[in-house]
Amino acid sequence: MTLGADDSLLVEIVAASRAAAGELETELVGWRRDFHRHPEPGFGEFRTAALLAERLGDLGFDVRMADQAMDIESIYHRDRDRVAAAEEGARQAGVDVGLLSLMRAGGTAVVADLKCGEGPTIAFRFDMDCLPVSESTDASHRPQRDGFHSQVVGEMHACGHDGHMALGLGIASIVAAERSRLAGTVRLIFQPAEEGALGGARAICARGVVDDVDYMICSHLGLGASSGEFVARASFLATSKYQVRFVGQGAHVVNSPQTGRNALLAAASAALALHALAPHSGGWYSINVGVMRAGDEQGVTPAWALLELGLWAETPQVHDYVVEWLDDVIRGAGQSWGVETSINQIGGAPGAVEDAELGALACEIAERLPEIGVVRDAVVCRAGEDATFFLNRAAERGGRGIYVLIGSDLAAGHHAPDFDFDEQSLSTGTAILSALALYLLHPARTRDLSLR
Amino acid sequence: MTLGADDSLLVEIVAASRAAAGELETELVGWRRDFHRHPEPGFGEFRTAALLAERLGDLGFDVRMADQAMDIESIYHRDRDRVAAAEEGARQAGVDVGLLSLMRAGGTAVVADLKCGEGPTIAFRFDMDCLPVSESTDASHRPQRDGFHSQVVGEMHACGHDGHMALGLGIASIVAAERSRLAGTVRLIFQPAEEGALGGARAICARGVVDDVDYMICSHLGLGASSGEFVARASFLATSKYQVRFVGQGAHVVNSPQTGRNALLAAASAALALHALAPHSGGWYSINVGVMRAGDEQGVTPAWALLELGLWAETPQVHDYVVEWLDDVIRGAGQSWGVETSINQIGGAPGAVEDAELGALACEIAERLPEIGVVRDAVVCRAGEDATFFLNRAAERGGRGIYVLIGSDLAAGHHAPDFDFDEQSLSTGTAILSALALYLLHPARTRDLSLR
Amino acid sequence: MTLGADDSLLVEIVAASRAAAGELETELVGWRRDFHRHPEPGFGEFRTAALLAERLGDLGFDVRMADQAMDIESIYHRDRDRVAAAEEGARQAGVDVGLLSLMRAGGTAVVADLKCGEGPTIAFRFDMDCLPVSESTDASHRPQRDGFHSQVVGEMHACGHDGHMALGLGIASIVAAERSRLAGTVRLIFQPAEEGALGGARAICARGVVDDVDYMICSHLGLGASSGEFVARASFLATSKYQVRFVGQGAHVVNSPQTGRNALLAAASAALALHALAPHSGGWYSINVGVMRAGDEQGVTPAWALLELGLWAETPQVHDYVVEWLDDVIRGAGQSWGVETSINQIGGAPGAVEDAELGALACEIAERLPEIGVVRDAVVCRAGEDATFFLNRAAERGGRGIYVLIGSDLAAGHHAPDFDFDEQSLSTGTAILSALALYLLHPARTRDLSLR
Amino acid sequence: MTLGADDSLLVEIVAASRAAAGELETELVGWRRDFHRHPEPGFGEFRTAALLAERLGDLGFDVRMADQAMDIESIYHRDRDRVAAAEEGARQAGVDVGLLSLMRAGGTAVVADLKCGEGPTIAFRFDMDCLPVSESTDASHRPQRDGFHSQVVGEMHACGHDGHMALGLGIASIVAAERSRLAGTVRLIFQPAEEGALGGARAICARGVVDDVDYMICSHLGLGASSGEFVARASFLATSKYQVRFVGQGAHVVNSPQTGRNALLAAASAALALHALAPHSGGWYSINVGVMRAGDEQGVTPAWALLELGLWAETPQVHDYVVEWLDDVIRGAGQSWGVETSINQIGGAPGAVEDAELGALACEIAERLPEIGVVRDAVVCRAGEDATFFLNRAAERGGRGIYVLIGSDLAAGHHAPDFDFDEQSLSTGTAILSALALYLLHPARTRDLSLR
Repeated sequence: MTLGADDSLLVEIVAASRAAAGELETELVGWRRDFHRHPEPGFGEFRTAALLAERLGDLGFDVRMADQAMDIESIYHRDRDRVAAAEEGARQAGVDVGLLSLMRAGGTAVVADLKCGEGPTIAFRFDMDCLPVSESTDASHRPQRDGFHSQVVGEMHACGHDGHMALGLGIASIVAAERSRLAGTVRLIFQPAEEGALGGARAICARGVVDDVDYMICSHLGLGASSGEFVARASFLATSKYQVRFVGQGAHVVNSPQTGRNALLAAASAALALHALAPHSGGWYSINVGVMRAGDEQGVTPAWALLELGLWAETPQVHDYVVEWLDDVIRGAGQSWGVETSINQIGGAPGAVEDAELGALACEIAERLPEIGVVRDAVVCRAGEDATFFLNRAAERGGRGIYVLIGSDLAAGHHAPDFDFDEQSLSTGTAILSALALYLLHPARTRDLSLR
Repeated sequence: MTLGADDSLLVEIVAASRAAAGELETELVGWRRDFHRHPEPGFGEFRTAALLAERLGDLGFDVRMADQAMDIESIYHRDRDRVAAAEEGARQAGVDVGLLSLMRAGGTAVVADLKCGEGPTIAFRFDMDCLPVSESTDASHRPQRDGFHSQVVGEMHACGHDGHMALGLGIASIVAAERSRLAGTVRLIFQPAEEGALGGARAICARGVVDDVDYMICSHLGLGASSGEFVARASFLATSKYQVRFVGQGAHVVNSPQTGRNALLAAASAALALHALAPHSGGWYSINVGVMRAGDEQGVTPAWALLELGLWAETPQVHDYVVEWLDDVIRGAGQSWGVETSINQIGGAPGAVEDAELGALACEIAERLPEIGVVRDAVVCRAGEDATFFLNRAAERGGRGIYVLIGSDLAAGHHAPDFDFDEQSLSTGTAILSALALYLLHPARTRDLSLR
Repeated sequence: MTLGADDSLLVEIVAASRAAAGELETELVGWRRDFHRHPEPGFGEFRTAALLAERLGDLGFDVRMADQAMDIESIYHRDRDRVAAAEEGARQAGVDVGLLSLMRAGGTAVVADLKCGEGPTIAFRFDMDCLPVSESTDASHRPQRDGFHSQVVGEMHACGHDGHMALGLGIASIVAAERSRLAGTVRLIFQPAEEGALGGARAICARGVVDDVDYMICSHLGLGASSGEFVARASFLATSKYQVRFVGQGAHVVNSPQTGRNALLAAASAALALHALAPHSGGWYSINVGVMRAGDEQGVTPAWALLELGLWAETPQVHDYVVEWLDDVIRGAGQSWGVETSINQIGGAPGAVEDAELGALACEIAERLPEIGVVRDAVVCRAGEDATFFLNRAAERGGRGIYVLIGSDLAAGHHAPDFDFDEQSLSTGTAILSALALYLLHPARTRDLSLR
Repeated sequence: MTLGADDSLLVEIVAASRAAAGELETELVGWRRDFHRHPEPGFGEFRTAALLAERLGDLGFDVRMADQAMDIESIYHRDRDRVAAAEEGARQAGVDVGLLSLMRAGGTAVVADLKCGEGPTIAFRFDMDCLPVSESTDASHRPQRDGFHSQVVGEMHACGHDGHMALGLGIASIVAAERSRLAGTVRLIFQPAEEGALGGARAICARGVVDDVDYMICSHLGLGASSGEFVARASFLATSKYQVRFVGQGAHVVNSPQTGRNALLAAASAALALHALAPHSGGWYSINVGVMRAGDEQGVTPAWALLELGLWAETPQVHDYVVEWLDDVIRGAGQSWGVETSINQIGGAPGAVEDAELGALACEIAERLPEIGVVRDAVVCRAGEDATFFLNRAAERGGRGIYVLIGSDLAAGHHAPDFDFDEQSLSTGTAILSALALYLLHPARTRDLSLR
């Protein structure tokens, strides 16, 4: 694909999308602030999901929720206490009890389709969960100053997911208004539990939600891109998190030390060995046994140990190389010390390969927006993101995918108590992403983005 | 010294002591059961100490308590919560508030002297603390059946210290009655916190309490000796307990792993090295890193780690060999991983050498008791006992010491929730120990136990 | 059994044996010095065995050699170079080529029976091998001064086996002379390769040589016992030696480190784990990875590693406890690092239990010798001795066994280049051991040493 | 600097250089083959240096050798046996004995200056040493087939240094012929011991040889670049090699294990820790303990250990991060095990930053050669190269430097026994490198390459 200066359809669509997004500015900010006031943790997005579902249904979308939208068996981990507190909050906020019950059983994902006749399917993914952060109450912190501070102590939208959901509703409004001119399906996926890579994306993919997607668009505000910048393809590290348990045998270390099976030394040995794995010529990685707990008494052979470890790798290949060692290292340590071992994955997100041509189209759209000054094709983010499950699944099924960054000046870094973003970026993001949908589903588009 | 069949004084004293102890049987059992009902933890023996002090004062003993009886700075460790609960219990039980205040500041030791003119000093040591054990409520458990069950949930005299204190009061009664016939001093030392080797004995010795002792007599009920058995010299393992802290530097393991200082791996490495120390040809030992805690998050280099370890050795020499390595092993691991380390001793008791001639005298006395069938000169107990501080200190100052076992059939092992002992042994023990005092302080005794 | 002052037979036999041994003194010293001049290494005792066989045959013994006397498949290890050199030396010394060929194939053991009619079998075991020590040439060293210095550079009888074989020949002479008065069989076993526990004793046992033995007598000169001392039962440590091999995969550590399998780190990890095995409450042990070799190049993942380790334990039970861990520790380390492992035992000797009554008889004999001043029933030797194979095998089959020490003042410690012993002890040892044989095979003996 | 299509001087110079190099083709091949026949190892390049010095002197260069050309104290390591053999070979080949003596003492570097009046100094570096490889004798191997096979068994020019030296002589010929038209100095540096990073480059820099260099040009044939390719700036890994020694204390592991200081376990522990160092976010690295040797006997605490390790890092910063840990890791392991340690660097080469503008000029020259089809500005070579000492030293002193690759099809990979290269590349390389010299020292050049 090469940039065609004469693609008048694209020019027209970008202009229209820009105008429509401009008209939504007040609503975008309103949605974002409402979500900000009511942060809900991963797999506890009850109120959030109910609101989204209602709004999308009103716009004519077909909405799937709970076990129709995700396979709860495929998640890695759920924090019972935080989720229960969120459910209680949602109940008090008036969320329908039957719906709560469904979501408690089947999860909090929302998948909404706007079907506009024959044509390709474009899917957008947004994340809904907040972080276990106590929001700043400093007077200079805008949510505090302007009255949309978190109403839940210890929970905060400190990463921008509130804004992401506003983007989703903005796109929904625009494509719903343009429905008659589109050929194909616009799918909006609202995902629980992106933070901590606990399995929200994985569980939605496991339900087959993106198996028929032709264009998979993931997005984030900020992440190193300032207001006025746009990145078409942000890549992420492949990552995994594990708990490893060692069960040995306690023994009185004076009377019968020989009957002990030392889980502490087994775990210590395993931790050292995991950190001593050879490097991979295909790329950088970092493994970290971040937590160790073992034993209870000085006079007793430690009968148990727990390791918690994380892995981040530049490429899926390097990631998998380390993961393939994990089982052998742990089992070997267990055998050496006569200790039973078990490994439990509690998080993870693969890396992903993104589509160059789809990225180029996104760049071309972004370049046509007056507020965009810097457009980058690809950047590397040294972090994990489970959106890569969507990108990989779509690619496996023949689709194309990209992960775009909508630049946004930040008041403080992602995950900080005084995090806040430039709300102007909501309109910009809505414009760019809507334009992608309007163009790719336009029957008259001339670009060759034929599917592999 | 050789056994003289014609030592009529000894024969007479043993018979008198046997008779006097027989008359005390009801009281001995009563004292024991009262202590059993009111168990108090190490350094929390407030009610216990107050009672003992009162009784001993009534008998004419000069009583020292608090900082006159021990140096609280010399203890290793105190469990704040258990001690505070015990103090509250003692307050409610009516212990004088001023005395409580003194003991809170200066400790719960009780040292009582019966001075009977010029002559040697014989000291007896008894321990006062209970164990953090919830006593059995089974109907077959005699304290339950006979109504002297522990009145404090989670605390129990499960080792026999209640009986030891009854022995002390029994001896006090007998020697007080014989006061006019004695030449010298009888000292009764009631020690806090024997369990866990937290420093009770050490702190009393640090106050100089046994510096002038000629005969140091420590004792225990049971410990492998059945009713009808007597052991003159039980030896113990030398033991120590330590907490080791590692302070490193946390770092984001993706963004700046190179700035981390990994306390978890330092501690893991140290734990392996401590267990891999070479054996000692002079005797057996067991070292155990029983507890490890390190780090908080999978994505952060562990910035801290804690090890808790115990050591038990057959001889003081072997014990010291391991202890001398400790600092090097820990510092070395710290240096290897760029981590600060500190070592804190939280418990310990040395081994001790006991006096053969004094042991022989004790044997001779025991053999003359009708209820004693088996007399042993020496046995090895594979456990620690901080009475060894008393034995060592006395020996350093030229005195002689022994640690005797008064045989007693047990309902269950020491430290078990259904532990109980044969209360007949209280009278037996009182008879033997009193006879030792009466003989050794008798002006007309012929045995040569001249001091070194 | 109790000592009977009126056992006139025993008194008479000891006196006769003492006299006979006295007459052999010159010969005993002559034999010893001849062996000393011609030291031969383990499994290389060609000249030694030929001489012994000839002498014993002359005395009327039935002699078995080579594969009739041992099962060469049951040895642990043979040093090809030292053995070949010894064979060449024996050939030059005129040993029959056919006999050499037999011994090369079947080993250098010599087993000689003197059958004297019906009755029990008493067996004596002597070791034949020298040490790889260069003998002192100092003028004060008696072998140098008196002209019986080793004629083989780098080989020396530095442990006393030369004396042991002289004892064997002395006993052979005495019992042959008394043949007509004996009822039973005297068996003399000359064993190759005691040093290093390479399997000489094990291989003779594997041929069934002691399966029918009633009284198994092993002995050593010195070993802590001075001239004038006698020990009836010396016990030894159980010991084993192993080679452990690790085979990994080399890889260029820049271009493809991920394909490597690091044998060096696997072996390092295994070495640490072996040294960190828990102690055993049943007794002391020492394990030592004494040798490690791994890898060839700085730029290549080490593809191989070798550990050599030894184990010494106070009891067979403790020994076996460690050995049972060995396989798991090594396999576990192999699995952790993706490395193949193999374990090969290259030496070993079990501990043994000896017979108290037989020991008492030996004590009684020794006490009746004028030159013996100190008699001890039992001592512990902190060393390994593969004679324990004989003692254990005999005991398994219902026999009784002891390992006696014939006290002998030493010029320097066993295995030292200036080692030498008091040759008077040859006559003493011959007297005691011969008396044992003469008494135990005497038809008229009254002692009850009936077999279990 | 921007590419000027109208730089007629450059066009002219490249054409002239191309023509001159073409005329030298036969000679270039002849020189190369002569060097190929007579390979000499690092610091043993006696014949090679003598030949080069003679030829360069004949061309009018001022030649420095031995301690005038390098500081022998600054090398890391010298293989005594290989160097001695090489010297004997050179002596037999007729190299002057006085010159041999000088080189034996001061090293085998050759530095030759052609001074052509005032102006900048351009230096070219070539390496002279061969590899310890036995050259293929296969009939299909051109050196074998065409009669220029190595005449020294076990030594071979298997990396292309023979060709590098031919390039040097080619450049010498051309610049000498153009001497009158140049303003400045052409310096040719022939370096011993590039292979193994033993310190050849470091020692020449230590003599100050490149302190006054304005343009530092290093080069290599092949290295991934095929015939027809040219790379202006090849970057290399920073690398180091170390020997680490551990000296403990042997002890009899039964009689006195407590007196041992275990060097084997110290080294094992250090090896594990070195492999477990945290990654660096600034780039990839690989550390490898490739060799370990420790201890001699199973029954003795290992008193010594040796590790040999190598490090390769993407950037000097990452390299230095690891090196800074080295001392702490080793010392810490030593302290933990009571063992003395020492670290000895035996090789190393830093990474280097190269000059973009000088690289661009080289590209422009290469693009003008008819045989060059592919020109690359920069590539990363995952290997170490001690030419970086020259590049760094020149840069420190304000000069510019590049490391160029002259593409050359290879018969087999570098360091393989059947390595051979495309001899056409000798003429190409001579043309490009000579053009650089002729242009940079031309008084009329218009390019702004003013020095920093």
